[in-house]
Amino acid sequence: LADVSKIANDDYVGFTFFVGSMAMMAASAFFFLSLSQFDKKWRTSVLVSGLITFIAAVHYFYMRDYWDQIGESPTFFRYVDWVLTVPLMCVEFFLILRVAGAKQSLMWKLIFWSVVMLVTGYFGEALYLDSTGASTNPTMQWVWGLISGLAYFVIVYIVWFGEAKKLAVSAGGQVLKAHKILCWFVLVGWAIYPLGYILGTEGGLFGLQLVSDIESAQMSMNVVYNIGDAVNKIGFGLVVYSLAVSSSKD
Amino acid sequence: LADVSKIANDDYVGFTFFVGSMAMMAASAFFFLSLSQFDKKWRTSVLVSGLITFIAAVHYFYMRDYWDQIGESPTFFRYVDWVLTVPLMCVEFFLILRVAGAKQSLMWKLIFWSVVMLVTGYFGEALYLDSTGASTNPTMQWVWGLISGLAYFVIVYIVWFGEAKKLAVSAGGQVLKAHKILCWFVLVGWAIYPLGYILGTEGGLFGLQLVSDIESAQMSMNVVYNIGDAVNKIGFGLVVYSLAVSSSKD
Ligand SMILES: CC1=C(/C=C/C(C)=C/C=C/C(C)=C/C=O)C(C)(C)CCC1
Ligand SMILES: CC1=C(/C=C/C(C)=C/C=C/C(C)=C/C=O)C(C)(C)CCC1
Repeated sequence: LADVSKIANDDYVGFTFFVGSMAMMAASAFFFLSLSQFDKKWRTSVLVSGLITFIAAVHYFYMRDYWDQIGESPTFFRYVDWVLTVPLMCVEFFLILRVAGAKQSLMWKLIFWSVVMLVTGYFGEALYLDSTGASTNPTMQWVWGLISGLAYFVIVYIVWFGEAKKLAVSAGGQVLKAHKILCWFVLVGWAIYPLGYILGTEGGLFGLQLVSDIESAQMSMNVVYNIGDAVNKIGFGLVVYSLAVSSSKD
Repeated sequence: LADVSKIANDDYVGFTFFVGSMAMMAASAFFFLSLSQFDKKWRTSVLVSGLITFIAAVHYFYMRDYWDQIGESPTFFRYVDWVLTVPLMCVEFFLILRVAGAKQSLMWKLIFWSVVMLVTGYFGEALYLDSTGASTNPTMQWVWGLISGLAYFVIVYIVWFGEAKKLAVSAGGQVLKAHKILCWFVLVGWAIYPLGYILGTEGGLFGLQLVSDIESAQMSMNVVYNIGDAVNKIGFGLVVYSLAVSSSKD
């Protein structure tokens, strides 16, 4: 028998962790098992979509249990997850733009900035907490958040207006269409995360504290992060999937 | 529910164990699920790449929990892992050189020296510790480390200048290119391990003790070993993967 524990009917964080883990798991099965129907050159892209949700699935099972048993935000595991999945999303941008001659350097640039974004975000979120979860230095928290945000905007710039955009235009057709949707994911979907950060971090927004009670702050942050993950990982993957469908011969 | 325990935000060893386990898992899924897109003669090589990361993934999940619950270096399990994965890397060298007529004896030679390297390294790392983790015989520790290092150099010699090199040259093309990169992995990537040994073993460097506090010594050793494993197992596999991609017809 599995080791289960009682769950409260109004445990919304637990609910989103559960839904998240199942959705990620199902999405991985979907991407992996559909591989064979695509032309070879699209398989890698869809495979990477599956890896992203698969990594997330394993983490969600873990975080769900962590939340249940320890009753604290599994911040640590979120960042383990992101530091793997966000670079893989950068790989996706590269993979679909290869038809237009994208160079690996583009991929490494995106990966570099995504790692900067996540490492500095982790510093802000994790390093200035006392044992009760209260902030020991709200100023440093928003400073790190701001640096992280700048790195985020570099990524937004590259995909919306920079090198990646030019390649997408020269590829045209389905690739350009998919690229445009992915750009919106980066601009709107990814913006969910700084929102979660602001909600959950005492000094998140230039020292402003939006949710004063630590426990509710953590709860709202986790719900927001869980929604963000579902939208971004599964949605992003589905865009790539559709591109592969429409570009593969029957 | 899994049996989770609280993790400190600054547990960097735990962090690298976690990232490592997930990365190995994702890499295995990647190699296994991409098999069908290669020409038959390359599939075995990519399959072996997947086995290497798969074996590592299972060990990393275990070592992660070991570190978490016992709070000690999981040296024992590292060597269980290496004694399987390093010989498999030797098999990879053989497999990609088969096109140039490599003989099984080359494979067995490489395997032999890798086992010597690992067994002697294990003696040095594990046999001279008292119950607190302090060394009972720093001299023997560096003597075994030195023997291990000599075996390591035999491998470096064979792949860089010996039999394997000659075969790679006669194969030419993509195989020669891949072989060259793998050679660099052996020379630079594998050199990460003796570095970890020196950091974590009291008498590691001819009796010199680089990190005096046992706990920090073990922590730095584990971070170094974890980085080494990620670079070598996944990187090595990706080189073989690229070779298979570029040598398979569409
Ligand atoms: C800007 C910013 C952040 C951005 C995080 C992002 C953009 C994360 C994206 C994660 C994804 C896309 C995961 C899906 O797999 C942080 C680190 C919260 C810190 C505050 C500032
Ligand atoms: C030279 C030397 C060592 C070398 C270890 C190596 C080279 C391990 C390689 C492991 C790999 C490649 C694993 C990846 O899957 C030891 C045993 C630390 C002992 C000290 C001297």
